Amino acid sequence: MTDDALVIFTPSGKRGRFPLGTPVLQAARQLGVDLDSVCGGRGICSKCQITPGYGEFPKHGLTVAADALSEWNAVEDRYKRIRGLIDGRRLGCQAKVMGDVVIDVPPESQVHKQVIRKSATDRVIEMDPATRAVYVEVAEPDMHEPSGDFERLAQALKDQWQIEDVEADLTLLRRLQPVLRKGEWKVTVVLNKCNHDARHRLLDIFPGFDERPLLGLAIDLGSTTIAAHLCDLRDGRVLASSGLMNPQIRFGEDLMSRVSYAMMNPGGDVEMTRAVREAMNTLAKALATEAQVPPEQIYETVFVCNPVMHHLLLGIDPVELGQAPFALATSSSLSFPARDLDLTAINPAARTYVLPCIAGHVGADCAAVALSEEPNKSKDMVLVVDVGTNAEILLGNETRVLACSSPTGPAFEGAQISSGQRAAPGAIERVEIDPVTKEPRFRVIGSDLWSDDPGFAEATKATGVTGICGSGIIEVVAEMRAAGILDAGGLIGGPDQVGTARCLPEGRTFSYLLHDASAEGGPRILVTQGDIRAIQLAKSALYAGARLLMDEMGVDTVDRVTLAGAFGAHISPKHAMILGMIPDVPLEKVVSAGNAAGTGARIALCNVAARNQIEEVVRHIHKVETAIEPRFQEHFVNASAIPNAVEPFPNLATVVTLPDVSFNTGGGGDGGRRRRRG
Amino acid sequence: MTDDALVIFTPSGKRGRFPLGTPVLQAARQLGVDLDSVCGGRGICSKCQITPGYGEFPKHGLTVAADALSEWNAVEDRYKRIRGLIDGRRLGCQAKVMGDVVIDVPPESQVHKQVIRKSATDRVIEMDPATRAVYVEVAEPDMHEPSGDFERLAQALKDQWQIEDVEADLTLLRRLQPVLRKGEWKVTVVLNKCNHDARHRLLDIFPGFDERPLLGLAIDLGSTTIAAHLCDLRDGRVLASSGLMNPQIRFGEDLMSRVSYAMMNPGGDVEMTRAVREAMNTLAKALATEAQVPPEQIYETVFVCNPVMHHLLLGIDPVELGQAPFALATSSSLSFPARDLDLTAINPAARTYVLPCIAGHVGADCAAVALSEEPNKSKDMVLVVDVGTNAEILLGNETRVLACSSPTGPAFEGAQISSGQRAAPGAIERVEIDPVTKEPRFRVIGSDLWSDDPGFAEATKATGVTGICGSGIIEVVAEMRAAGILDAGGLIGGPDQVGTARCLPEGRTFSYLLHDASAEGGPRILVTQGDIRAIQLAKSALYAGARLLMDEMGVDTVDRVTLAGAFGAHISPKHAMILGMIPDVPLEKVVSAGNAAGTGARIALCNVAARNQIEEVVRHIHKVETAIEPRFQEHFVNASAIPNAVEPFPNLATVVTLPDVSFNTGGGGDGGRRRRRG
Repeated sequence: MTDDALVIFTPSGKRGRFPLGTPVLQAARQLGVDLDSVCGGRGICSKCQITPGYGEFPKHGLTVAADALSEWNAVEDRYKRIRGLIDGRRLGCQAKVMGDVVIDVPPESQVHKQVIRKSATDRVIEMDPATRAVYVEVAEPDMHEPSGDFERLAQALKDQWQIEDVEADLTLLRRLQPVLRKGEWKVTVVLNKCNHDARHRLLDIFPGFDERPLLGLAIDLGSTTIAAHLCDLRDGRVLASSGLMNPQIRFGEDLMSRVSYAMMNPGGDVEMTRAVREAMNTLAKALATEAQVPPEQIYETVFVCNPVMHHLLLGIDPVELGQAPFALATSSSLSFPARDLDLTAINPAARTYVLPCIAGHVGADCAAVALSEEPNKSKDMVLVVDVGTNAEILLGNETRVLACSSPTGPAFEGAQISSGQRAAPGAIERVEIDPVTKEPRFRVIGSDLWSDDPGFAEATKATGVTGICGSGIIEVVAEMRAAGILDAGGLIGGPDQVGTARCLPEGRTFSYLLHDASAEGGPRILVTQGDIRAIQLAKSALYAGARLLMDEMGVDTVDRVTLAGAFGAHISPKHAMILGMIPDVPLEKVVSAGNAAGTGARIALCNVAARNQIEEVVRHIHKVETAIEPRFQEHFVNASAIPNAVEPFPNLATVVTLPDVSFNTGGGGDGGRRRRRG
Repeated sequence: MTDDALVIFTPSGKRGRFPLGTPVLQAARQLGVDLDSVCGGRGICSKCQITPGYGEFPKHGLTVAADALSEWNAVEDRYKRIRGLIDGRRLGCQAKVMGDVVIDVPPESQVHKQVIRKSATDRVIEMDPATRAVYVEVAEPDMHEPSGDFERLAQALKDQWQIEDVEADLTLLRRLQPVLRKGEWKVTVVLNKCNHDARHRLLDIFPGFDERPLLGLAIDLGSTTIAAHLCDLRDGRVLASSGLMNPQIRFGEDLMSRVSYAMMNPGGDVEMTRAVREAMNTLAKALATEAQVPPEQIYETVFVCNPVMHHLLLGIDPVELGQAPFALATSSSLSFPARDLDLTAINPAARTYVLPCIAGHVGADCAAVALSEEPNKSKDMVLVVDVGTNAEILLGNETRVLACSSPTGPAFEGAQISSGQRAAPGAIERVEIDPVTKEPRFRVIGSDLWSDDPGFAEATKATGVTGICGSGIIEVVAEMRAAGILDAGGLIGGPDQVGTARCLPEGRTFSYLLHDASAEGGPRILVTQGDIRAIQLAKSALYAGARLLMDEMGVDTVDRVTLAGAFGAHISPKHAMILGMIPDVPLEKVVSAGNAAGTGARIALCNVAARNQIEEVVRHIHKVETAIEPRFQEHFVNASAIPNAVEPFPNLATVVTLPDVSFNTGGGGDGGRRRRRG
């Protein structure tokens, strides 16, 4: 019998010999095994649960005896009785090594737990939040060693947690002495680590061991929609998610109209700032209510947003963003007290982190997409498109990443479309048109049935068919093109040319009747020539931006396309490609990343190292300015054809053959275009 | 003729050879000569004025030709015409080296100007303020290099001033863009350097070159009096000084009664905090008005104060300081936004620095005294006594420094004395008693005449003789002892024992009639047995504290004594030693340092390196706790005799022989003592 023993940890495989009697937690720490502990090994927090393995381990050439660990002790007994402990589990701080042993660290005992992101690409987030709680035992004051209570707390954090450079503001110092005495010099402190230096800010302090969850908000502040996730900062779980209309919409639908509002109305920027900050408080309270947690437990907020929203959130007049050279007041990431944003609904000591902006037109939301989708780590050439009122576009691979933004306008969100509406029950979201009969069928949000399925009317009775949302618009226009109702120039043919009475004359142009409920007092849902023009403008801007980046990169094709944004998640790749919104790639290479900007915000919330990472990546993203680039105009004009006047779409051709129709010789049919362009 | 030349700077003596055409400012910078510049050498600020010397310099073996510098140029001409320039002066950024030359840097052109402190000890303060202004030219925004305006400003500060790690809060970021554009990308920024790391905070920004003075407040926040200096942060000049009664006096005269108030009245600490912060705003406004400067130009405040005032200023309940072990909430120095103290009268971006506390009873005021008097740099053993309601005592030399505080009570400030009053016109401040006739003569504040001088009544008519202030109390008691009116035990003799009708019976004790104006309706000013007892308690506490430090240091004598505090400046060393307030030293070794705590605050305001210095010194000051030290009681009892029951006062004996009288055998005469001690 030797006086030390071999300890092997799984799944890490780390191993070492330790003197008999060494607590498992201590062995783990010495080997750098990722085993959590909040109480520092005092048998209080139970974070260090481990599962010892007994018997034969041929892989390790080891037999583990039943007495390889010290006996189950009173602390574990009490813990199991009061709080519960899975059979076979031990507390790593209590169980001592008494012989060769194999010890498994279950995922929930790892500090750097990995959280599977619930989305198409299934990325994992490693937990390493900026804000965490630790339990610490502070030396009592001593008349002969007259250091202050705060200095002794800081010393204890250094000794027990190797945490140095702790700072506290006056609000915390005011509360310090009573809490230390109430907790009899044992306290749980909430610390926030800055990602730029080694400083830790003391955000809160509770007497004794305190297990209340620390929460964080990841917020994607869009021009139209504010999306937020309330996350548990211990394990990254999303406790509640919510969306809210941006209340600034009353000051202007798109960004430039808000900038104009600020320019035309003295104090207009202050009004908009107040509106969005109030919405943040409303959102925080709503999410906390939904998750049944007190909003004061929210200690961190992470924001991603486009430059105009960025400035309006921070209280900076966005006027410079409305004119060349589109100068940001600041482009770096920001870290400051959340109270500076008047976020009074959450913990008064809460911190805010704002991701860096890439340029005056390419914001922190695009940085968040880059953090989530990591084009900079891609081996193949990936195009990431975040579709919204502005499209943010990233192109690159591990060698180089380019970015631009393109003013698509709100057509993809259903605005500026005659029967357009936001995505809501009753909105048409899927469309098919029979290429022979030219008859449509469709589905609406809120029902799985197609419009020609039996029971459709019954199933949609509550809402009826109310309009067309963004993804529906894309599908109907693409289907019209595929069915020969629309020519490559974007003209709708007349009933005689197309061969269907659904093509109705409207002045000198034609509209396609998608749905007629007027007999029952419902709407007539038409796709007008004007709607087609609006979609052409939007998709041309998007394509031209992507193509400009491809020029800059020196490539004619990309290997894959990622569609991001809440709306991107619902776009049918085939229809997007028929429209020529995105460059031609094999259809299976087009994936949706959902709300990638929101995911990027969550990553930055859950992992402080990711903040350094995206700050570094942003420094190396090369920004291409569409507004001053002549080729952008050229690509834009070419892209107004469906799918494109000059670019071949060979992959698309393997899936669908677009009819070679042309309606622009019929005379007068192009009046719509001439009027719009005139 | 060579293509370089020798440049010698005076008074530094630094020298080097430089290519012909090198601007003098550039040569100075390369040699590390302390030559100021705010505009970075652009001929705007005129801070770099120099005086070239021409002709023979035998000391340097050099003859300077008349054309050793480039010709007077248009920039200098314009500057001289508009702003004025002393004859013989040149602008260092304009004048170029054209031959061997000797260049004098006048004191006002040095960055690290030295300011002579106007006090007995004439210490100098080297200027190196935390807050300063620099002029900087910022690159304009460029669509192809999309960094934010703030990032380009930070880059300019790095390139033009070698200032890195610049931070700005949202308030500043909000103002940044319009100011940069108004100044056409030339701005003056106010920066505050943290003494703990390399960070610079951007406090303010002005378009173009802005010369407005930056101001700072050095505040000695005492229990009774708040003393403040308004200083110009460019050259350290005191623009205005003011004192104000601490409005907290209405909550309790001394510190412990204020702690009691906080303990007995819920929210009492908040009331006191509010009162003192309001007073700070009043004081700031009054000083700015006096100096005829806008209070918004105050960018920094430095506070020194005792621990209770420290906590009440910071908004921390001082309850723990009222009971053993006298734990401070925090003992370190603090640096935070002045707005956290509700200092709304000054610049909203202003910073506050609070010196570190030494212990629960020995505060930042004592640290400031240490910074001003530097016992840690003394070769001989120095005792520094800051006399106030509490006495702070430092003893040491360059090897070791000890500190304690001793509760002297307010007797030295005229409180608890029957005819006592604060130092104000009409108060008796100097006393002599004829040892033969026992007749007194005295002087009052506001007149240079003695009471037996002709014209005294006329000279003091406006105020009359109103009472006795602290220094007068010390003198009259010491003079009574020297004249044999008082015995060593502190008893006043009766008229028969002393031989003067001025000793009046008061119950079973006697009082000495110092002045009687009752015939004219004025006061009778008596020194009662109770007054003597109050002074005995106070001086015993002071002496016992000093003696305890001497014990701890292992010395029986000190080499010199420094009396600090506003009151200390007025104490007569001889009388203090007759009383036995301070240990026996040669009289010429007792000096007054005036308000040393206030001077320490000024030093920390004007020199950021001094902050590190005092923080380091405080870490090495050993604190001795009087409250728990049995020898303190012993020293206290011995010191209640005048001058002392056991300690010899050999130096005092060379100056004055104290009569060997004793009145405590007369029966009943000691009743006063027995009653007080009972």
